[in-house]
Amino acid sequence: MTGKRHEPRREEYGFIVEIPTRWSDNDMFGHINNVQYYRFFEVVVVRFLAERAKIDIMTAPVIPYAAESLCRFRRQASFPDVIEGALKVEHLGNSSVRWGLALFRRGDADAVADGHWVHVFVDRESGRPLPIPGPLRETFEALRSTPGG
Amino acid sequence: MTGKRHEPRREEYGFIVEIPTRWSDNDMFGHINNVQYYRFFEVVVVRFLAERAKIDIMTAPVIPYAAESLCRFRRQASFPDVIEGALKVEHLGNSSVRWGLALFRRGDADAVADGHWVHVFVDRESGRPLPIPGPLRETFEALRSTPGG
Amino acid sequence: MTGKRHEPRREEYGFIVEIPTRWSDNDMFGHINNVQYYRFFEVVVVRFLAERAKIDIMTAPVIPYAAESLCRFRRQASFPDVIEGALKVEHLGNSSVRWGLALFRRGDADAVADGHWVHVFVDRESGRPLPIPGPLRETFEALRSTPGG
Amino acid sequence: MTGKRHEPRREEYGFIVEIPTRWSDNDMFGHINNVQYYRFFEVVVVRFLAERAKIDIMTAPVIPYAAESLCRFRRQASFPDVIEGALKVEHLGNSSVRWGLALFRRGDADAVADGHWVHVFVDRESGRPLPIPGPLRETFEALRSTPGG
Repeated sequence: MTGKRHEPRREEYGFIVEIPTRWSDNDMFGHINNVQYYRFFEVVVVRFLAERAKIDIMTAPVIPYAAESLCRFRRQASFPDVIEGALKVEHLGNSSVRWGLALFRRGDADAVADGHWVHVFVDRESGRPLPIPGPLRETFEALRSTPGG
Repeated sequence: MTGKRHEPRREEYGFIVEIPTRWSDNDMFGHINNVQYYRFFEVVVVRFLAERAKIDIMTAPVIPYAAESLCRFRRQASFPDVIEGALKVEHLGNSSVRWGLALFRRGDADAVADGHWVHVFVDRESGRPLPIPGPLRETFEALRSTPGG
Repeated sequence: MTGKRHEPRREEYGFIVEIPTRWSDNDMFGHINNVQYYRFFEVVVVRFLAERAKIDIMTAPVIPYAAESLCRFRRQASFPDVIEGALKVEHLGNSSVRWGLALFRRGDADAVADGHWVHVFVDRESGRPLPIPGPLRETFEALRSTPGG
Repeated sequence: MTGKRHEPRREEYGFIVEIPTRWSDNDMFGHINNVQYYRFFEVVVVRFLAERAKIDIMTAPVIPYAAESLCRFRRQASFPDVIEGALKVEHLGNSSVRWGLALFRRGDADAVADGHWVHVFVDRESGRPLPIPGPLRETFEALRSTPGG
């Protein structure tokens, strides 16, 4: 029913960042709370946009809005695990991109979770979708074509 | 690309709770951060389990684990909006349930967001899936058969 | 050593707001996490500034910066408790105000926690302290002079 | 009014951990939200208790409860800054310890914030204060006597 499909592998992802967990990421069950996984997704995407695409989302005229996200929870992690957040481009449209994401415990082959996050690029003022600006698109293309890069 | 499909309507949902927003739910864009929508989903599901299904997730021998969640972000909301979180049963399996969820600003007809959340019921000790216990199943059946109930 | 001093009483506070807890406010010990109490303080102060002082902190030319906060943790609370957040003015300076805060479980006489929060009013652009503007000051004076008002 | 006193210096603190910020630590003002500073304090104290004092707070018979915390906000930090959280022992009582804490941006001499956090050690079952167990006390003594250690 939950569609866990194939196991994600690190090599599919061209951008990886380390995310140390915090004690407050754990919930009453003693494991990382499932909602926090989206926080980790957010860290990965925002860092990619800042470090690779050089977009300053507080001032850029074209900004990304989340349209949809999904996470499949595969295994458990707990503070003080260090999480490796991994990013790839699953689909690149005219105004939107669907990021593929996976989270691994440092050193583990099997992912703790994977999913996607759809960003639509909009005009900061009007909120209307706009074509993804050329330099951004080039950065996204580069990520798409360099798995494990 | 993001599959927004049909607009969710309040009448489809049999359990609704009010969730006042907090200033810290807003992010740097001045709107409720998309990850917080999953926090609101969590409030709705946990309150249903506590109030209707009378399950104490800290002591029950059979507990729900999140297997997958998804959210479609349709409109924006901001502190100090009050959110109405709405719940229905989309699918009831042997060991799992897929909740349908939608969030509305109080008084608005159109949803801010909708999505789903899959719970698998597992043995607290072993973590292995178990059939949903009878009394829980009856409560879930009752929700499924009383839209807007 | 922790200086719990006198028990705070609701009647000392002129502005009270209800704050429903969320499941995620609990930590691994099964009680509201102590850091979340500052989130509740924040809700109370922000709502006072918005509702009574009519300050829009995203656009106002003079904005409040936190300079210091403190919380004494007296009793435990847990989801799904509803918290009443209570506010008074402890000290009103030229550029700053020290809010007195207390949190009660709805219906309880004894506070769960109390503390303070110091705001310094600064120029949005330069970050330099400025005298509290007249209309704000009047609102703060009104709160100070109407305990339980 | 806010008692900023002397500037804290790294050399006063015997235990330092790095805490990468997350985008969600920023608030609408574009800086780390003041409440998050307590989350950073929590990370530092919990990691000290786990790594140096080897206490497993989920199973230990004697556990620490927060009794009071305070933070002075001195400078601003923002994602993606890396924060260095620094810990010392300010006071060691029979059942309680007052931790001194400071936060620095990596490489900066001046602290972003400093404050304290009081822990009372209690019996897990009854919640009553107990003398700090011998091995814990020795670890706390060691931290107290090795500034910058």
